Amino acid sequence: MAKGKFITFEGGEGTGKTTQIGLLSDYLRNRGIETKLTREPGGSPGAEEIRALLVAGGTDRWDAVTETLLHFAARRDHINRIILPALRKGKWVLSDRFFDSTMAYQGYGHRISKKLIDELYRFVAGNLEPDMTILLDLAPKDGLIRANNRASRELSEDGKKEDRYERMSSNFHNRLRKGFLQIARNSDKRSFIIDSKKNIKTIQSEIRILVCERFGIHGRK
Amino acid sequence: MAKGKFITFEGGEGTGKTTQIGLLSDYLRNRGIETKLTREPGGSPGAEEIRALLVAGGTDRWDAVTETLLHFAARRDHINRIILPALRKGKWVLSDRFFDSTMAYQGYGHRISKKLIDELYRFVAGNLEPDMTILLDLAPKDGLIRANNRASRELSEDGKKEDRYERMSSNFHNRLRKGFLQIARNSDKRSFIIDSKKNIKTIQSEIRILVCERFGIHGRK
Repeated sequence: MAKGKFITFEGGEGTGKTTQIGLLSDYLRNRGIETKLTREPGGSPGAEEIRALLVAGGTDRWDAVTETLLHFAARRDHINRIILPALRKGKWVLSDRFFDSTMAYQGYGHRISKKLIDELYRFVAGNLEPDMTILLDLAPKDGLIRANNRASRELSEDGKKEDRYERMSSNFHNRLRKGFLQIARNSDKRSFIIDSKKNIKTIQSEIRILVCERFGIHGRK
Repeated sequence: MAKGKFITFEGGEGTGKTTQIGLLSDYLRNRGIETKLTREPGGSPGAEEIRALLVAGGTDRWDAVTETLLHFAARRDHINRIILPALRKGKWVLSDRFFDSTMAYQGYGHRISKKLIDELYRFVAGNLEPDMTILLDLAPKDGLIRANNRASRELSEDGKKEDRYERMSSNFHNRLRKGFLQIARNSDKRSFIIDSKKNIKTIQSEIRILVCERFGIHGRK
């Protein structure tokens, strides 16, 4: 049985997931909790190789079916080699994206069968579920401004811009946002929606309160 | 609707698929039939990138679930970008491996759910089916001797040996052979089993007779 907690951060491009994960990890570590920060697609050496295929290149480099299968292939490797071993050691795993992103991007965004996406999830994850999911919600236009600023600086190892998804249509990004909100409402036992237009400190404070309430953390160590 | 014919060659390692495909293609071209030779995993630029992940590295580089998904991701790209366009142009597509290899390697060899493999096939291929499948059957010990001789010569583009599957256990290769035979018997309308212990010319002659009978090709051009 897993002893650690598994917390996933979801949301569109530029909603601040990476920043908030870093701040939450600092907070948890100050309380003596060991954390493992990871991300999808990627997170394990093999899954990062698959990520390199997914996030660079033309928007039509892969069709939606191919990319759905690549995401789940990467996720299987990530779960088996990083997430489950860390949880078994009692670490808290904080993942920058997980299953909800596939449902939002490929299910709501690209209209792949949601039933099939659910089946693929069971195939790769068995009965693993996040203990908690934080959805950082932001209008696509605000998120894409942030993401574009970032993408102009950050390149993948082989010098390619990791902006393949950012460049998809605004209709796609609108479906994506609605998808994330719908998924969070459908899984309201684990999911919490945070307004990501607020400033970084306010958002982090809200996240800390939610995490402390959910897992019964009190006071400073 | 596809106008060309889609012929797949299946079988374990070192059963002579590539050689026989080349010879059959020569024969068909001499009769005025345009052919497209391809292979799986791979066959399209994207699928070849996925192939590079699959065929090199340690036998435990990917678990069976991950590799099943990678094979289907590659297959989707191969079907959409190579197989269907060629068939629409009236070309005969000769593929060195296709779906039966996934069922044999991942279904029979690694014991992934056959029902799920069938579902994934429908997801990536819709109603595409090979018009004909030639199974080259050979005892694993004979095939692996040939494959090992070949693998010592042939390297992938980045200099890695493409021998990850060859190095799997003999139990695995025995399950594989039984799997291929079972699949061919279950699909006897499209599948023909050829004893690959015979010499190259005899095998090619048998294949040509089967192909000519099936598609009504007569005489030399």
